[in-house]
Amino acid sequence: MPESPQLSPLSAVPSEVDAALGAFFRDRHTEFDGIDPVFADGIDALEEFVTGGGKRLRPVFAWAGLRATLESGRVTGDGPGAATASAAQLTTAVASLEFIQACALIHDDIIDHSDTRRGNPTTHRRFAARHRAAGWPGSADDYGESLAILVGDLAFAWADDMLVGSGVGVRALGRAREPWHAMRTEVIAGQMLDIALENTGSDGPADPDAALKVDRYKTAAYTVERPLHLGAALAGADAETVDVLRAAGRDIGLAFQLEDDYLGVFGDPAVTGKAAGDDLRSGKRTFLLACALNAADRDDPVAARRLRAGVGAVTTDAEVDTLRDIILASGAVQQTNDLVNSLTQTALDPLRSAFAGAPVLDELVAVAENLTDRRS
Amino acid sequence: MPESPQLSPLSAVPSEVDAALGAFFRDRHTEFDGIDPVFADGIDALEEFVTGGGKRLRPVFAWAGLRATLESGRVTGDGPGAATASAAQLTTAVASLEFIQACALIHDDIIDHSDTRRGNPTTHRRFAARHRAAGWPGSADDYGESLAILVGDLAFAWADDMLVGSGVGVRALGRAREPWHAMRTEVIAGQMLDIALENTGSDGPADPDAALKVDRYKTAAYTVERPLHLGAALAGADAETVDVLRAAGRDIGLAFQLEDDYLGVFGDPAVTGKAAGDDLRSGKRTFLLACALNAADRDDPVAARRLRAGVGAVTTDAEVDTLRDIILASGAVQQTNDLVNSLTQTALDPLRSAFAGAPVLDELVAVAENLTDRRS
Repeated sequence: MPESPQLSPLSAVPSEVDAALGAFFRDRHTEFDGIDPVFADGIDALEEFVTGGGKRLRPVFAWAGLRATLESGRVTGDGPGAATASAAQLTTAVASLEFIQACALIHDDIIDHSDTRRGNPTTHRRFAARHRAAGWPGSADDYGESLAILVGDLAFAWADDMLVGSGVGVRALGRAREPWHAMRTEVIAGQMLDIALENTGSDGPADPDAALKVDRYKTAAYTVERPLHLGAALAGADAETVDVLRAAGRDIGLAFQLEDDYLGVFGDPAVTGKAAGDDLRSGKRTFLLACALNAADRDDPVAARRLRAGVGAVTTDAEVDTLRDIILASGAVQQTNDLVNSLTQTALDPLRSAFAGAPVLDELVAVAENLTDRRS
Repeated sequence: MPESPQLSPLSAVPSEVDAALGAFFRDRHTEFDGIDPVFADGIDALEEFVTGGGKRLRPVFAWAGLRATLESGRVTGDGPGAATASAAQLTTAVASLEFIQACALIHDDIIDHSDTRRGNPTTHRRFAARHRAAGWPGSADDYGESLAILVGDLAFAWADDMLVGSGVGVRALGRAREPWHAMRTEVIAGQMLDIALENTGSDGPADPDAALKVDRYKTAAYTVERPLHLGAALAGADAETVDVLRAAGRDIGLAFQLEDDYLGVFGDPAVTGKAAGDDLRSGKRTFLLACALNAADRDDPVAARRLRAGVGAVTTDAEVDTLRDIILASGAVQQTNDLVNSLTQTALDPLRSAFAGAPVLDELVAVAENLTDRRS
């Protein structure tokens, strides 16, 4: 096992990522603010977004992949792993994932016509408000969307700049290419599938597998599987280790999304920060809903019709309660819970055998369990 | 001078780039079509766009920078230059610029609400048409814009994948980072400045310098300066050579845009493929217009009022003619022509001394002159 830098616990990663992002923005301001105040304001908008919250989940998983590889010594013979990079350089490398996430969310908020994100106006609303305040001619909404498309593009470019400029050596960067490139394509694929699924109507039979496929690409690959892979690649993991981490990441990520879907229907607004039954109001086409529709189609056609008519149309808490009762009665909640539990099990058992004795193991298991069981 | 691969003439670059793009798409289809037909259709949309036309200007300039460096032997001592890469790998590397351009244009077409591009429906219109044809619920226009935002993002990711996966060695790629990263930020900055300029109204004094700044970032840096720089970096150019090429690229790029602005007002529709006086109809805030407004404000306030009221509002050829006459009378055309001529001169003279004897010189000069003098 090569000599490794001292690597922080997973619990310290979010604040260290914040510091790395802050340093990156200071450098960008120095380099680019001089172009024009308009562009400097664009950089400000991106900085407000990136530093304005978020759990730093993707860097945490990348860090876990890195530490799991180094602590277990499961590295290939082809190079010194991450040993030639400092901890600060590695933190910068994994922090770059927050820029991919910024692009995804800023563009998603345009696509969903969302007004707020983490309690702040979304990026397109921010720019639209500037346009209105300045009393400029033309459409403030168009202006807002245009600038937000470009701020998202900037985030996408800077993700790359931050990773490649992290100071991590060219061999480690070369190994990181595969997860980095796959992840970006996969998250875009997942978003396209999601939009297509939302748009193809809900009159016909529901398709739980289509919902799972969206979850797999839009959430599981992007949030857990590929970040673990990226960290492992930076550390020089051997092929078997990459396989173990990716398989676990797929399952943890899917379980995480299914838990999210449960909370989107049954979660406590005080905890989720969203309206009760938010997914029912917005009509999100989840695995949970698809299972409920299929079961009701089979067992209770009247309930199925009410559910189909209500999803995406309900506005009051009483209407939400009615739909919740139908979903509970359908058995779909139990079906989803069973899947979450079995995915968590199939994810964690191989991790426990592959990384037995590695200090990161318990930390990683705790992070995974927190994500897949958030009801207490 | 290191041994170099046989490098094609600039005139052969477009068809070689087309072949490289075709091969790249074949690989991507093999790798990703299996995700889902929806994503395969997204890849198709990108392929139709990328292979559906375009002059391949940016790869041509990158190729010119590469050849100028290698043919003049102006390389640093730090590595073997491009000599370790094959001509096909270098073609793939410079072809990746077409994906940056695809992202820029696809997103620009959303921003500008454009219906057609190169005679085909724009990407957001293509998807909106699919939505309508399928009779899906919801807004076809929203669907089209959403998918087009994501197709643009995909292009941006694949630009990087194509460059990094070109087979060019890690040292050459390391050198290519600076122009690659700077170019992406600069073109986004230029687009933001352009949108801000279009939105800030035209009642006050016109600002020729603001228009030139947009041109500098949105066109000159992105289309000529940084592609030349990228090619030079791939070839291992020394710092002085990079400086000469960048300075020339800035001036050629600016002259190219100013010529474009002239053609946008006075060009022959049979040649430009656009309506006569297209920039006057759309209200584009060009250097030419800013100069005309300033001169008219000073010399002929009545004409200035007519010009201000007409730009962005005129629809008939007769109205266009009236505005053209005002612009001609203002002296702004002469002023713009003088600037084009002086920029072309200051660009080409240093190239002629730096690359005297290099076979690429005459080819590069011819490309530059074609771009900056397109009126015959």
